[in-house]
Amino acid sequence: MTDDTKTIAFVVYPGMTPLDMVGPLTVLDGMASTAQEYRTVVVGETKDAVTTDNPLRLVPTHTYDEVPSPYALLVPGGAAPTLKALADEKLVGYLRSAGANAELVTSVCTGSLLLGEAGLLKGRKAATHWMFRELLGAFGAEPVAERWVEDGNVITAAGVSAGIDLALHLVERLVGAEIARTIQFVIEYDPEPPQGPLDWSKRPYGDLKPLLEHTLNEALADEPALRDRLLAHTGK
Amino acid sequence: MTDDTKTIAFVVYPGMTPLDMVGPLTVLDGMASTAQEYRTVVVGETKDAVTTDNPLRLVPTHTYDEVPSPYALLVPGGAAPTLKALADEKLVGYLRSAGANAELVTSVCTGSLLLGEAGLLKGRKAATHWMFRELLGAFGAEPVAERWVEDGNVITAAGVSAGIDLALHLVERLVGAEIARTIQFVIEYDPEPPQGPLDWSKRPYGDLKPLLEHTLNEALADEPALRDRLLAHTGK
Repeated sequence: MTDDTKTIAFVVYPGMTPLDMVGPLTVLDGMASTAQEYRTVVVGETKDAVTTDNPLRLVPTHTYDEVPSPYALLVPGGAAPTLKALADEKLVGYLRSAGANAELVTSVCTGSLLLGEAGLLKGRKAATHWMFRELLGAFGAEPVAERWVEDGNVITAAGVSAGIDLALHLVERLVGAEIARTIQFVIEYDPEPPQGPLDWSKRPYGDLKPLLEHTLNEALADEPALRDRLLAHTGK
Repeated sequence: MTDDTKTIAFVVYPGMTPLDMVGPLTVLDGMASTAQEYRTVVVGETKDAVTTDNPLRLVPTHTYDEVPSPYALLVPGGAAPTLKALADEKLVGYLRSAGANAELVTSVCTGSLLLGEAGLLKGRKAATHWMFRELLGAFGAEPVAERWVEDGNVITAAGVSAGIDLALHLVERLVGAEIARTIQFVIEYDPEPPQGPLDWSKRPYGDLKPLLEHTLNEALADEPALRDRLLAHTGK
């Protein structure tokens, strides 16, 4: 590592969805093995293993304090634990300070809500998981229903698996299409969803507003001010 | 957990590619949250964090000894470290014993080589990462170039990201298409690779035989018998 090293920091926190991070990490670490001015790190409040929303736990390589000024930031999402994390001052404070100076600020799924709480989405187009899209309005962002959306140096992806598409785009943006294509071959990313692409006419869960209200009420019972701020943005 | 619990064991070992496991784990843990007779566990030789082929480390929930007879087994792959793992008697021994009694034996990427070394692929069709496909012949398997292939209770997937497709198929096989579709929505799996599907006419790395020989020579320098057995299956 030299002074010119460009550090891509993948942020972890309790209860997150690990695929949000592991997909992009695999792609961008592949880039770092070719374009050696880059390196990837996994950043947590401490170096203790963090829980996820499945039985797997993930071990950070660095603490927030050790990576104050990354070149790029990627924040994964999740369901209720990510809403709870909006009240995590250390996490949101790290995103605010690291994000203010980063060349690239990115998120997957509801990670964009965390960027929003850190003040990084004001007046920007942003994506998130489809179930939580309306909440983006609470942070002054303009919600868009895209696989990923680029607004200046802030690039946010849709839910969970969209992080892989986002990351391949980042590789293309940073080092070009040829390396991005090689990485796509290395991870054999040639998707064949057994039931085909999503057919939105078959979307589950019906009306999202009551579901979102229920989730906010459960997740943020101890944070009434935050809860009420978000409850004002649950759609029509 | 009751006596009727069906345990799906995700095996971890040093140097593996984490996306191979985390994609399917996310899908199948989603199934377990709906179909509660299932549970997912992450199984390692010990409960210490294991390294991967990127900076992330993963923490097992159980040891091999604690999960001797899982309902289903999923083995992730990787590059050189997975070839080295073919000589890991504890890992291969666990796959042999757990795999012999499991209802479902599955792998992602070069995880199928580990199943092969455990004697579980004899006479079966099997998939693996495209760079390593010829090696399947060393284990008496019939290599196929499919996203995933089902041969009785053994289901093997192609490289890395193919595990997500495999896992959605498993959910459909185990609990039906409706739950599989809901999980596909939850992980918003509606892929949009920025450069489109893989165009195999643009495959990188040229002739695979010398590359595979080099990789085997490097990874298995300390295991000459195994190395030579595999070197006899590097294609034309």
